[in-house]
Amino acid sequence: MTYLTEETSAETVTARIGVNADPRLRRVMTSLVRHLHDFAKDVELTEAEWEYAIDFLTRTGQLCSDARQEFILLSDALGLSMLVDAINHRLPEGATETTVFGPFHVDDAPERPMGANISLDGKGELCLFSGRVLDLAGRPVANALVDVWSDNEDGFYDVQQPGIQPPFNNRGVFRTGPDGRYAFRGIRPVSYPIPDDGPVGQMLTALGRHPWRPAHMHFLITAPGYDRIITHIFVKGDPYLTSDAVFGVKQSLIVDFRPVTSTTEKWQAEFDFVMRPASDPAGVHRAANATTRKTQEEQA
Amino acid sequence: MTYLTEETSAETVTARIGVNADPRLRRVMTSLVRHLHDFAKDVELTEAEWEYAIDFLTRTGQLCSDARQEFILLSDALGLSMLVDAINHRLPEGATETTVFGPFHVDDAPERPMGANISLDGKGELCLFSGRVLDLAGRPVANALVDVWSDNEDGFYDVQQPGIQPPFNNRGVFRTGPDGRYAFRGIRPVSYPIPDDGPVGQMLTALGRHPWRPAHMHFLITAPGYDRIITHIFVKGDPYLTSDAVFGVKQSLIVDFRPVTSTTEKWQAEFDFVMRPASDPAGVHRAANATTRKTQEEQA
Ligand SMILES: [Fe+2]
Ligand SMILES: [Fe+2]
Repeated sequence: MTYLTEETSAETVTARIGVNADPRLRRVMTSLVRHLHDFAKDVELTEAEWEYAIDFLTRTGQLCSDARQEFILLSDALGLSMLVDAINHRLPEGATETTVFGPFHVDDAPERPMGANISLDGKGELCLFSGRVLDLAGRPVANALVDVWSDNEDGFYDVQQPGIQPPFNNRGVFRTGPDGRYAFRGIRPVSYPIPDDGPVGQMLTALGRHPWRPAHMHFLITAPGYDRIITHIFVKGDPYLTSDAVFGVKQSLIVDFRPVTSTTEKWQAEFDFVMRPASDPAGVHRAANATTRKTQEEQA
Repeated sequence: MTYLTEETSAETVTARIGVNADPRLRRVMTSLVRHLHDFAKDVELTEAEWEYAIDFLTRTGQLCSDARQEFILLSDALGLSMLVDAINHRLPEGATETTVFGPFHVDDAPERPMGANISLDGKGELCLFSGRVLDLAGRPVANALVDVWSDNEDGFYDVQQPGIQPPFNNRGVFRTGPDGRYAFRGIRPVSYPIPDDGPVGQMLTALGRHPWRPAHMHFLITAPGYDRIITHIFVKGDPYLTSDAVFGVKQSLIVDFRPVTSTTEKWQAEFDFVMRPASDPAGVHRAANATTRKTQEEQA
């Protein structure tokens, strides 16, 4: 294994990792190199394909800016983001399922009074969103912050259209009272395509995939003593539910938007969130890894 | 498999590939997604590690320019470049082995008369490089172009020091005569570190690896009717031969640089190159893949 050969290429590379390298880094990079080399061998990657990959990754990096993260988009479109979410949020029975965070959250959205309308551009069909934030035993969680955001009727988030949409359009933070209830008005969200004018869009086209996400309202829910919930609720009946470009849909997150007769809004959507107690979400698995690492070191 | 789960994540993603996608692209991307997801599951990739990876890849892309290709450097440092070289150049017995092309070749180096000195900056210890270009039967190959390049005594290629080194310093193209012989003078090359002030350098440091390459002279040999040879010859005795940062060394490419008594040079290095007939180097394997693909489609 002094010199790299086709047969022992991965082992030759990982054998170079120094004895003082961080054990977790050693484990991650050993696995990464093995899987990367296995992939190249499996498909017998050609030199032209390798060159294309170098160029693709370069263009992906160079498109990234404060307003665009093409590598996150790539991870999303390859299902990696949802897999990492799944690995790190194995939930107890009854807790609300999670999904991708997405790139359109902002940290400084204003807290608004319960029931306020977050749609500031007057476009779209209004909907009353309401429900409760509960713990695993079904008790209300008071003082939970319910941070919500969606696209507007044209399929764009405010941050995608600075100067066109009003600041904080379709965004707001609501605080639950002692009954754990939240309520706000926003538009019934619409489907939108992920940005598809870059390398990821080219990949989707070549794979015969569309860039659309089914209509959804984003939720980030935090409360002292509980793990935060990052999720969406999806609009039942959306044509893209079974082909979300980023694989974010889960059955339990699909909500029936029901028509209502009201002077204020045309629709209502009800959803209860169930929080789990605060924990290192991957704590069990980390501990398991730590044991594995120790064993490996003892053997080394 | 409608919605992505931890268990079936890769299959959910690859099931989305359209029926009209190019069969080779389908095969490559199916394997890529499977190995990528297997890696994430194997190490139970944390969200912090995923975020680090996104940032690492972004910085790697953003460092790329006309003068720097950090993704090729990453591929080199992970042994992927040499693996792809091995997969695509399974040589017949006796043919000269290949190694990494590297980023420092230029297309317009001047053809020089046989025996010319390519070292234009007067630095370093001169060496006479000579040998023959042969076919698999040992017959001389006439009119082969022998394109050579190396670093200078300070460990830099001319393109890394524009305005400091003379243009085309330590570069030249030589044409073999009917006897297949080539000869030129250059410096005895010196070890040098790959550029290590970017993400790849950070990775090497974290892994406890050094960035050095053992001293080598690059060769690109072309002749009508033969496959081109991209390779180096390495200086026997170099301390980095067994730890080349890019895994480029092969036993058959290590050459004894012998001291000589001459008014012109201090060293000589002799090496014969053996070319294989022109072919699609991965032709056999492509054909095998094509069969596999057809079988998969028939089964689908
Ligand atoms: Fe969204
Ligand atoms: Fe080099």
